[in-house]
Amino acid sequence: MVIAIDAMGGDSAPEEIVKGVVQAAQETDGRLALVGNAARLEALLTPEEQALVNIVSAESVVGMDEPPARALRGKRDSSLAVAVDMVRRGDAHAVVSAGNSGAFMAMALTSLGRVSGVDRPAIAIPVPTPAGERILLDAGANVDCHPEHLLQFAILGSVYCERALAVESPRIGLLSIGTEQSKGNELTRAANALLREAPVNYVGYVEGNDIFTGRADVIVCDGFVGNVLLKTGEGLSQAILGGLRQMVRGSFLAKVGLLLMYPALRHMKQRYDYASYGGALLLGIKGICVVCHGRSDARAIRNAVKVAERAVQGRIVEAMANACEGLESSAFQQA
Amino acid sequence: MVIAIDAMGGDSAPEEIVKGVVQAAQETDGRLALVGNAARLEALLTPEEQALVNIVSAESVVGMDEPPARALRGKRDSSLAVAVDMVRRGDAHAVVSAGNSGAFMAMALTSLGRVSGVDRPAIAIPVPTPAGERILLDAGANVDCHPEHLLQFAILGSVYCERALAVESPRIGLLSIGTEQSKGNELTRAANALLREAPVNYVGYVEGNDIFTGRADVIVCDGFVGNVLLKTGEGLSQAILGGLRQMVRGSFLAKVGLLLMYPALRHMKQRYDYASYGGALLLGIKGICVVCHGRSDARAIRNAVKVAERAVQGRIVEAMANACEGLESSAFQQA
Repeated sequence: MVIAIDAMGGDSAPEEIVKGVVQAAQETDGRLALVGNAARLEALLTPEEQALVNIVSAESVVGMDEPPARALRGKRDSSLAVAVDMVRRGDAHAVVSAGNSGAFMAMALTSLGRVSGVDRPAIAIPVPTPAGERILLDAGANVDCHPEHLLQFAILGSVYCERALAVESPRIGLLSIGTEQSKGNELTRAANALLREAPVNYVGYVEGNDIFTGRADVIVCDGFVGNVLLKTGEGLSQAILGGLRQMVRGSFLAKVGLLLMYPALRHMKQRYDYASYGGALLLGIKGICVVCHGRSDARAIRNAVKVAERAVQGRIVEAMANACEGLESSAFQQA
Repeated sequence: MVIAIDAMGGDSAPEEIVKGVVQAAQETDGRLALVGNAARLEALLTPEEQALVNIVSAESVVGMDEPPARALRGKRDSSLAVAVDMVRRGDAHAVVSAGNSGAFMAMALTSLGRVSGVDRPAIAIPVPTPAGERILLDAGANVDCHPEHLLQFAILGSVYCERALAVESPRIGLLSIGTEQSKGNELTRAANALLREAPVNYVGYVEGNDIFTGRADVIVCDGFVGNVLLKTGEGLSQAILGGLRQMVRGSFLAKVGLLLMYPALRHMKQRYDYASYGGALLLGIKGICVVCHGRSDARAIRNAVKVAERAVQGRIVEAMANACEGLESSAFQQA
């Protein structure tokens, strides 16, 4: 197994990316390929570390704020484009990037294409629950969705959860604002009707406060709601954990308390801060693409490589193609 | 000033409601009226406390899960209906309830009516920011919105923020998934265009992670997104703060740390747990209606009474009527 990593994408690239990949390389049977400026990458690696990874040369870098359409046209020699292209050519089984996520999505769509039967790929983010990591999708790829898209997300999420997270018959929940069937908005009510007939283990509506309790293994919503949620969660966890730090300033005892609790606080940060846990997937693409937060540090990159590895081992692309084969794609396209 | 409180509504009614109202009565110049079963309420009050509040008798109670339409027809003698009616008759300046919020909304709409120019009242929830309490609306009254509704919410929120929270020229932010104008979904792009021409201090799109930083004083979104956010925030803060408690179990030192940090943790809970801070407002109704979380305890009720008091002092209903007077209501109704 080869996993290509865009070494130049992300706020702390290439240093943190390289560090994370070296850590991951020591734990995997697969081969990790760092894609980017070869001279810069070599300078960051000891000779022993260089033996652990491959370096694939790429001339340019896609800027974090560069419009995806421009990157798509003008940055074919970028670390991101080269890494994606390795998957297209069969030189890699998965690609990981903490770079410009819009450009990543655009390149993946253009270069790798969609799984047949899927209108729109979705971003699936990991969600921490008491039973372990579960997923929510779409986290921002599709801001205006039809009910049929939510059905597709449910099927993609179900396959991923079963194959990569080893959850048997994953419970699919539709994010809404009440659990009664009459609740929700026009979109969720129509999607609810479709999902009740769908070949997935649909458990009905779930609410925002169910996300972290694990009432469902796959939480489905449109990309607008998912992205707002993702960022609100980010803001809230920072406000709470950062606020605790602020709050102890006036009190010596509370400061001591903070110090003693530090491992627990750090653990909670790693658990609920998306930048730390990273590793979202583009589902519905004909290839395994792992999107990391721009703020990813070495730990997040190491985690993302593991996410990619599990997805490759679960052969999720083939499984998604099978699951979507039976679907009437024409019915979706008219929507 | 008289504030009517539905003493029988809420998971911990009437005990916690009475306790909170007694606390609030000691801090206010206004008069607080407890509405409910007189014998039960009297039994919960000492003679000194009875002198602090009024008791208004109401025969029945609206169940927490009772369909609003049924409550509206069949529970005219309920504590909630009687409390709302006190506002209609001019016997009270505001009404507070932790009971069935759907029934509260329905009774307020029917009995008190809408501010002219407002198509749909919205629920405004308090949001903690470094600069103090700010608001987000709509938190669940309107799940499918037109751009014109979001414009109305912005105007209502602006008036409330200025008059009751004493924020000069409140900054209005539209919740979206990126700050560039091209971002967002169909609804936010159309609303963005309206808001740029509106008589409010519109600062453009804000993202989920801006909610708690105070980048805007009033955050506007549709009721589906707002309600999902509210509940996700509730779930996340419980997961983080509850998780910290779980996590220290294995470690004696961390337990000591938790103990020392307890005041800070409790403060964070009160700050970010909606059930604790409570006190949402129905804006756009011709009367001041404060909706509390069903789980409200005495502290939340006391806080809600303060919210009601500030709204009465700010004469927000008159101010909203003035602000909405200039609006072309017909333009909204065609939407």
